[in-house]
Amino acid sequence: MVNAGDETAGNPEPCVVGVDFGTLSGRAVVVRVRDGAELGTAEHEYRHAVLDRRLPDGTRLPPDWALQVPSDYIDVLRHAVPAALTAAGVRPDQVIGIGTDFTACTVLPTLGDGTPLCELPGLIDRPHAYPKLWRHHAAQAQADRITALAEERKEPWLQRYGGKISSEWEFAKALQVLEEDPEVYRRTERWLEAADWIVWRLCGRYVRNACTAGYKGQLQDGAYPSADYLAALNPAFADFVTAKLEQPIAQLGEEAGTLTAEAAAWTGLVEGITVCVGNVDAHVTAPAAKAVQPGQMVAIMGTSTCHVMSSDRQASVPGMCGIVDGGILPGLWGYEAGQSGVGDIFGWFVRTGFPASYAEEAAALGRDPHEHLTALAAGQKVGEHGLIALDWHSGNRSVLVDHDLSGVLVGLTLSTRPEDVYRALLEATAFGTRTIIEAFESAGVPVEELIVAGGLMKNPLLMQIYADVTRRPLGVIGSAQGPALGAAMHAAVAAGAYPDIQAAAHAMGKAERDVYRPDSERAAAYDRLYAEYRLLHDYFGRGTNEVMHRLRRLRAEASA
Amino acid sequence: MVNAGDETAGNPEPCVVGVDFGTLSGRAVVVRVRDGAELGTAEHEYRHAVLDRRLPDGTRLPPDWALQVPSDYIDVLRHAVPAALTAAGVRPDQVIGIGTDFTACTVLPTLGDGTPLCELPGLIDRPHAYPKLWRHHAAQAQADRITALAEERKEPWLQRYGGKISSEWEFAKALQVLEEDPEVYRRTERWLEAADWIVWRLCGRYVRNACTAGYKGQLQDGAYPSADYLAALNPAFADFVTAKLEQPIAQLGEEAGTLTAEAAAWTGLVEGITVCVGNVDAHVTAPAAKAVQPGQMVAIMGTSTCHVMSSDRQASVPGMCGIVDGGILPGLWGYEAGQSGVGDIFGWFVRTGFPASYAEEAAALGRDPHEHLTALAAGQKVGEHGLIALDWHSGNRSVLVDHDLSGVLVGLTLSTRPEDVYRALLEATAFGTRTIIEAFESAGVPVEELIVAGGLMKNPLLMQIYADVTRRPLGVIGSAQGPALGAAMHAAVAAGAYPDIQAAAHAMGKAERDVYRPDSERAAAYDRLYAEYRLLHDYFGRGTNEVMHRLRRLRAEASA
Repeated sequence: MVNAGDETAGNPEPCVVGVDFGTLSGRAVVVRVRDGAELGTAEHEYRHAVLDRRLPDGTRLPPDWALQVPSDYIDVLRHAVPAALTAAGVRPDQVIGIGTDFTACTVLPTLGDGTPLCELPGLIDRPHAYPKLWRHHAAQAQADRITALAEERKEPWLQRYGGKISSEWEFAKALQVLEEDPEVYRRTERWLEAADWIVWRLCGRYVRNACTAGYKGQLQDGAYPSADYLAALNPAFADFVTAKLEQPIAQLGEEAGTLTAEAAAWTGLVEGITVCVGNVDAHVTAPAAKAVQPGQMVAIMGTSTCHVMSSDRQASVPGMCGIVDGGILPGLWGYEAGQSGVGDIFGWFVRTGFPASYAEEAAALGRDPHEHLTALAAGQKVGEHGLIALDWHSGNRSVLVDHDLSGVLVGLTLSTRPEDVYRALLEATAFGTRTIIEAFESAGVPVEELIVAGGLMKNPLLMQIYADVTRRPLGVIGSAQGPALGAAMHAAVAAGAYPDIQAAAHAMGKAERDVYRPDSERAAAYDRLYAEYRLLHDYFGRGTNEVMHRLRRLRAEASA
Repeated sequence: MVNAGDETAGNPEPCVVGVDFGTLSGRAVVVRVRDGAELGTAEHEYRHAVLDRRLPDGTRLPPDWALQVPSDYIDVLRHAVPAALTAAGVRPDQVIGIGTDFTACTVLPTLGDGTPLCELPGLIDRPHAYPKLWRHHAAQAQADRITALAEERKEPWLQRYGGKISSEWEFAKALQVLEEDPEVYRRTERWLEAADWIVWRLCGRYVRNACTAGYKGQLQDGAYPSADYLAALNPAFADFVTAKLEQPIAQLGEEAGTLTAEAAAWTGLVEGITVCVGNVDAHVTAPAAKAVQPGQMVAIMGTSTCHVMSSDRQASVPGMCGIVDGGILPGLWGYEAGQSGVGDIFGWFVRTGFPASYAEEAAALGRDPHEHLTALAAGQKVGEHGLIALDWHSGNRSVLVDHDLSGVLVGLTLSTRPEDVYRALLEATAFGTRTIIEAFESAGVPVEELIVAGGLMKNPLLMQIYADVTRRPLGVIGSAQGPALGAAMHAAVAAGAYPDIQAAAHAMGKAERDVYRPDSERAAAYDRLYAEYRLLHDYFGRGTNEVMHRLRRLRAEASA
């Protein structure tokens, strides 16, 4: 971030504002349109964070629930945006547009005017009246039925989602409302993504973005799941699409409307400036990392990894989260894949497998546990630890789409050390990414380079392992605020400063290409380890030995 | 141990002395013949411990070597025996016999009068002139050739050793001497077990015991491997048996001779008392634990586990360490099986997987790490942790006889805790013991109860898991000095105080039967987990997926 207040005072260049709505807070960034310079940034934490035990009034929530409070989102507009402007030293009249991105699928029930049901006096103690955060997992039973019925009926859209509909998505969460709180369902006039709700609050118009409609709302080739299909799920669900969901679709980077007087007052921006169509955090990161060509895969690597890539080829790639026309860039097929545990696995290992003697040594060297284990593991040759791991501690999203899988370690000996296991886990996640890349390529969708965004890009050992394992050059995004920068870039396009997001990416995106190049000797050694990974992957993951499912069942019975 | 000095002063009952020669020290115990009461004990540490880096003169040793110094054994006789007598308050003339047990196969080259070659002036810097400790593993290449040639020639004795001859045994270690230091080999007049060497020192006669001759010297049905076979290994090895090894065999519990004046001076005992035939630590423990009936399996559980059992049935049980006529009790077939890693695996886990926060909590509660993890794991229901492990961190002795196998963990999730893994490892070793028991039973050799000796018997959770997993009543030995007690009991038989070791076991042995009984509900749950263990056992251990061998190869290449 460059605080360029003084510099721009005499030269009031056009700017845009991007706002990234995350899981626990929102971040606003003020970006110069000409070159993407991030002039000022500010963060605002949600007052209610995630409601996973109680509603604000004390009402208890069952396990696996995760809700939020809509006014927390508005507070981000009221606090983070003005603070970012101040930090940037940018005058409001320099700002020509505002763009947003959101977690997804985060979805809420509202009245016809967008009023959240949870704000209605009679409904504040009703859990189903609140926004369901992406990681609300209590609609699994509904999701299982949605998938099973689609399989049975051979619904054509199922293959676009790797053969499985997630409990996190719009239909599963809505069906849960219908079946558990019919009154809230009945009073729901619109069932919409928070990504679109915040844009509605900014410009006064409800515009449904193509990205979440496709990835989370199962809109494929212009159609949602049919009334017939929905009726078979639950007769009262038959008119869900027509009564509560359907809305004209807008492409990413289009103008949704202009800033209302009310939103101008919240943000300190000028009424009437462009408000961009809503979008999703992972997806806006692609142009922020200048990845706007087919074959450029962006991996947003944090607790989990999301892989996004656009292509001119439409193919059925097994195990995708979704394949959506214009889902990332208008005019191209957007592919989303993912690994459900990455940084989470490394964090789990440090929490549970980092001995006291290591903690002391790390402290003496001024390293955090990850830095310490990375430093100890970095000098090893490929294969020296003698281990192979499966990175399924949080299940497997792509390409197996099975959250009941679990982690494996093979090759343990009495001389295995913590840094050996740590390195094997780093490598296992790289093998997971290679498995995804190979699924693309086998389906005829080329993947030519990787560009990494997210917190894990700071670990150079991990990055080099990914380059070696995938045998691909690896770049990194040039911003610590990838999503907010991406949202701002979409605002620049919507405001007409660039003809399309590709042009905006060229001028404003930030990536260093080819930072890590595969080493052919290490890559060859990794080919041998990867062959072991795939053998175990298919053995445990494709039904040869269903031990993981049986262990999970035994665990559930024992815990019951 | 009861210090009954005052009590026995006026009632000088007959006693025997047992001396247990371990890996790092020797222990002497003075035992009352009438009832096995342990009246006094003393330990003496070997001054040179294990030579695994250098000889006493500084000569460097290659990796995998492990040697000892014979005078350290004599020092045990000189220090521990008199100290035990003093502690017991027993007069020398009360002691009617002395018995010994030793680690095996610990083997050394001597002149024809028993002088160790390493004590000859010209040979003190020659590694091959020293005793090779049981865990000297540098003769693996020789062992591999011994097994391969026996397979090729279909040598009938091979099946008595689970199809594989260990690098730890007499022939592999001798062949290594021949091939690496022909001069030392040429000057070797006797190649003998330390178990027999110490008895020779005590009574002046070299008597070869039936136990090590069978288990470590490949003596089966009265014959060693033929000259023909040995010549095929190496022409210069053809006369190894006749020139250096052969010696009349004595049964366990027989008198080898009487105490020499020299040995009487060392020990403080009376010249002329009975010296018992040599024996092995694990094997003497069986009668010490009163396990002298067919079907009573003794598991000596420490860093590794040794299973010994006698039977009237001679059968080919796959994966045994050895099956020897009179190998444990005269007149019965002695079976030995083993698990190469047990307490070692728990120790490895505590060393590498016990986080700082756990260490603090354990310290606050005054528990050592094992006690703490055991306490945390004890409350779990069977299967609650969702894990299954393979206990091969130190390879697999029985029933797979493959030291290149390695450990496995399946079922890891982000909520897996250290106590979960710890319990899964405890259980895995119990599944390993059940696998061995089932191998016996499948071969028609019944196993009716387990009696545990060794340090791990102090963990009640582990003991209960073994009872539940094996569905067998589990007893524990009543002595902390099982081997030394067993050696003393053999001395009582040799001295004529009892007609046979069974009678001695009845009077002097100590075991509490049925301390842990299987719980049928837990046993049923364990049947399900054991089925998973066996599935993975066969997948990784019987050639379906040779990943462990390939990982080990890759590790060796990377480390080269």
